[in-house]
Amino acid sequence: MIKKLVFALLLFTSLNGQAQENLNFNRNKEIASPEINADKSLTFRLMAPNVKKVELQGDLLGKNDPVAMTKQDDGLWSYTTSPLKSELYSYSFIVDGLKIRDANNVYQIRDVASVVNVVIVPGGKADNYLVKDVPHGTVSKRWYKSPGNEKDRRISIYTPPGYENDKKKYPVLYLLHGMGGDEEAWLALGRTAQILDNLIADGKVTPMIVVMPNGNVAQAAAPGEDSKGLYKPGMQLPNTMDGKMEETFPDIIKFIEGNYRAKADPAHRAIAGLSMGGFHSLHISRFYPKTFDYVGLFSPAIMPFAKTTSPVYENFDVTLKNQFNNGLKLYWIGIGKTDFLYKSVADYRKKLDETGAKYTYSESEGGHTWSNWRDYLVLFTPQLFK
Amino acid sequence: MIKKLVFALLLFTSLNGQAQENLNFNRNKEIASPEINADKSLTFRLMAPNVKKVELQGDLLGKNDPVAMTKQDDGLWSYTTSPLKSELYSYSFIVDGLKIRDANNVYQIRDVASVVNVVIVPGGKADNYLVKDVPHGTVSKRWYKSPGNEKDRRISIYTPPGYENDKKKYPVLYLLHGMGGDEEAWLALGRTAQILDNLIADGKVTPMIVVMPNGNVAQAAAPGEDSKGLYKPGMQLPNTMDGKMEETFPDIIKFIEGNYRAKADPAHRAIAGLSMGGFHSLHISRFYPKTFDYVGLFSPAIMPFAKTTSPVYENFDVTLKNQFNNGLKLYWIGIGKTDFLYKSVADYRKKLDETGAKYTYSESEGGHTWSNWRDYLVLFTPQLFK
Repeated sequence: MIKKLVFALLLFTSLNGQAQENLNFNRNKEIASPEINADKSLTFRLMAPNVKKVELQGDLLGKNDPVAMTKQDDGLWSYTTSPLKSELYSYSFIVDGLKIRDANNVYQIRDVASVVNVVIVPGGKADNYLVKDVPHGTVSKRWYKSPGNEKDRRISIYTPPGYENDKKKYPVLYLLHGMGGDEEAWLALGRTAQILDNLIADGKVTPMIVVMPNGNVAQAAAPGEDSKGLYKPGMQLPNTMDGKMEETFPDIIKFIEGNYRAKADPAHRAIAGLSMGGFHSLHISRFYPKTFDYVGLFSPAIMPFAKTTSPVYENFDVTLKNQFNNGLKLYWIGIGKTDFLYKSVADYRKKLDETGAKYTYSESEGGHTWSNWRDYLVLFTPQLFK
Repeated sequence: MIKKLVFALLLFTSLNGQAQENLNFNRNKEIASPEINADKSLTFRLMAPNVKKVELQGDLLGKNDPVAMTKQDDGLWSYTTSPLKSELYSYSFIVDGLKIRDANNVYQIRDVASVVNVVIVPGGKADNYLVKDVPHGTVSKRWYKSPGNEKDRRISIYTPPGYENDKKKYPVLYLLHGMGGDEEAWLALGRTAQILDNLIADGKVTPMIVVMPNGNVAQAAAPGEDSKGLYKPGMQLPNTMDGKMEETFPDIIKFIEGNYRAKADPAHRAIAGLSMGGFHSLHISRFYPKTFDYVGLFSPAIMPFAKTTSPVYENFDVTLKNQFNNGLKLYWIGIGKTDFLYKSVADYRKKLDETGAKYTYSESEGGHTWSNWRDYLVLFTPQLFK
């Protein structure tokens, strides 16, 4: 038995240095960080005996400024927060001015060019973000032909539990990310697969296909996933809000309805997006009449229109009015009270009010955050296809 | 135009601190790390004016010991390697004794409980690991019912380019990870999707479905992907080499052949695995007669058999002999010269030689590394289904 265990341990660990995989199993073995305490506070820990200062920064502090962590004699730094509301939080440590990840937390998410650690405090709304013992949908990364962009492009697709085991057709939600995001964003930061699995299991949401394209049509795929290699992500202007995404959106619908058992009529198509994706959803749903009966604008970027030759932004008022008169079932707008886009959204609502357009408006606390966008997804999806 | 740009910039950046997403676009904007130089050396950089010492550690150094980086007056630390062979390398920085990620490189891979940065040096074998402008297969994360394990389990599946657009049946490679790995390992560390895409595009590999299950049957899914939540990964004994994975493997074959257009005969089934997955492949292919005509053992863990009630390890010699007499087309063994498992594999080969079993043996430089396992995948897959 001892011999077997020793042998098994060798499968993990380095025998002769660089030649073997260096798995670091025992390093930091005893340190839990973050630890979720009984009162829903979090304790963060970092073993760093040789540094002068360790700080914690993250949305869980309720402020942007970092807080100082406290050092024990053995070099273990720690900090315990106040009891926290249920949420998916992100955080970093700052060690002598250098922002780093928590060595004891392998759960990280890339948001554009930053990578941050994440932690889920359960016991409330964030329970929707957990993987539970419920039937799970399938998440696929596929490539579709986009003749309008003259390239193949990568796309994320969630099919609901049971999709592969029946012959039914399903409604489709097209779910668009914000500027700097890509086809990974709604899955990683939005916890879309978990939210859909859980709300479908609860009977709150109609089983649906969720399609998450890449809204930066200059890209074929998320950073690292196309032939540009492992480049450093950055701002993705141009080709994000110049009409091209909207013009080439039919390539996506055609791909989905040609490759999935999708109900191909306006009553079974929804489009929603956050920030820039809200801008895209606004224009796509307006520009293609009688295509989407359900529209969700999550903290939408109601941009001043660009000088562009794209026909997408022409005849705005007429096409918008037509959209609302053509059987639209839901036009949902959500924004946070402190969102920097609040005023432009208020102006847009005023415009809608003046034309008698009927929409649903949801105002939340907070700003331009993934916390709000996850909330909006949870509020929006139960209203679809009913 | 200025107004539009300013507005667009606001979509990225924090206006009122914690309430908005903090995307850190401009931080480290000008720092490239790692930079791939013309001579294929790599330059690493880290801005850290307030720390005493920064070191670089990684397999690209050709040794396990870290090297010291050099500080400029402005606090930028850097180090340039020798010209490097084409490879996927992993590395960390060590700042005053603390192992951290490169803030300028968002590309990271989790290997069990460690997260490391990765970089691909092109111009040779690692070109197979790049996403190229070739047709791409689909990667899906699905859940299958495993009655033998009394749970639903997560599985990664690669279907080759064209799979969705024809009605053909495809051969299947079952590709198993090592101890501490999971259904993500071959995709993330093994670059399986890229390797298959590229070798299929080159006409070197027959288009095939690649099935990557989770070999730790005590788990439903990779860490963070099951109902255990975002726990700290660790060693996954027991239930990894006690017969249970092998006993319940028919659940996986049944799922694949019931849900995919898979050619369901021995001539179109292959099984291969690394380390513990090599152990699993050895036993599964032997225990289920006339099931797999192609077997790949990559640095296999030829374990002393456990005291177990599992029938999997009984009648070893007889079932092994039967396997080689039943139409087996390829029994491929690869191992590195400095692998700590070298001797046990040599002993196993001796046993095979004594019984007259015909196998293909490939000995490489190096040890128990993902570099070797990617090589073995590139060597093994062109020999399948021909």
